[in-house]
Amino acid sequence: MNQTSEWELHPQLVRETLTVGDLPLSRLLASKDGNYPWLMLVPRRVGGNEIFDLSPADQATLMTEIAQVSKALKRLTACDKINVGNVGIVVPQLHVHVVARHRGDAAWPRGMWGAVPPKNYEPGVLEKFVEDARKALGLG
Amino acid sequence: MNQTSEWELHPQLVRETLTVGDLPLSRLLASKDGNYPWLMLVPRRVGGNEIFDLSPADQATLMTEIAQVSKALKRLTACDKINVGNVGIVVPQLHVHVVARHRGDAAWPRGMWGAVPPKNYEPGVLEKFVEDARKALGLG
Repeated sequence: MNQTSEWELHPQLVRETLTVGDLPLSRLLASKDGNYPWLMLVPRRVGGNEIFDLSPADQATLMTEIAQVSKALKRLTACDKINVGNVGIVVPQLHVHVVARHRGDAAWPRGMWGAVPPKNYEPGVLEKFVEDARKALGLG
Repeated sequence: MNQTSEWELHPQLVRETLTVGDLPLSRLLASKDGNYPWLMLVPRRVGGNEIFDLSPADQATLMTEIAQVSKALKRLTACDKINVGNVGIVVPQLHVHVVARHRGDAAWPRGMWGAVPPKNYEPGVLEKFVEDARKALGLG
């Protein structure tokens, strides 16, 4: 894939998330779906929608960012399991979900992609989560 | 995580898959669920069930194997999208799904984890898929 010049976040991701900040490769987003603490990594690259469309160097950076974000999310939420995944059918821009799963959550024990309808956060909760994620990852 | 000495494939993965072969880090499996061409990478490491429990070197190798297997699967199946994911709640051993998704498949456009009950392959089809995957990945 190419460099960042023409890169723009997909409009559906703009609508459905808040921005946490920019890691070296990816923009980090927080989903507005209050069912699960749910982050997304979107590599700021154009020209493909599969992980293997990234250069090998970008693939390595993406894995580093997945591990870093997963670890921070685990610490922030004391969750039982991190789920990591790229589905990318509804929103064709390459993005990787990093989701905190708790025993008994809305989709437990299955994958949460499309499992239940999104629900709203209580006021202020998502903003606090975004702030905590920023601090945990040194993002401003 | 530690080295391979004590590593054993989880019994549920033994039951639900055929073995394709061993890549440098991971055992590659093919799911018996005939809904989708479905491979799994299981790092031959013990001691954790999150991607970040792997050493940084193993994380990098895992990403290389994800990209390599995804590309081969795309070529073999002419699919519309590759799905990559680690859920790991039902089977706690760290494993990464690499699944070929086709427009109109049983879970399209959603994630396929737990979406519909597994179905059997027609006789010989899974064995042929495993053989093709071996050839494509040089796992003769």
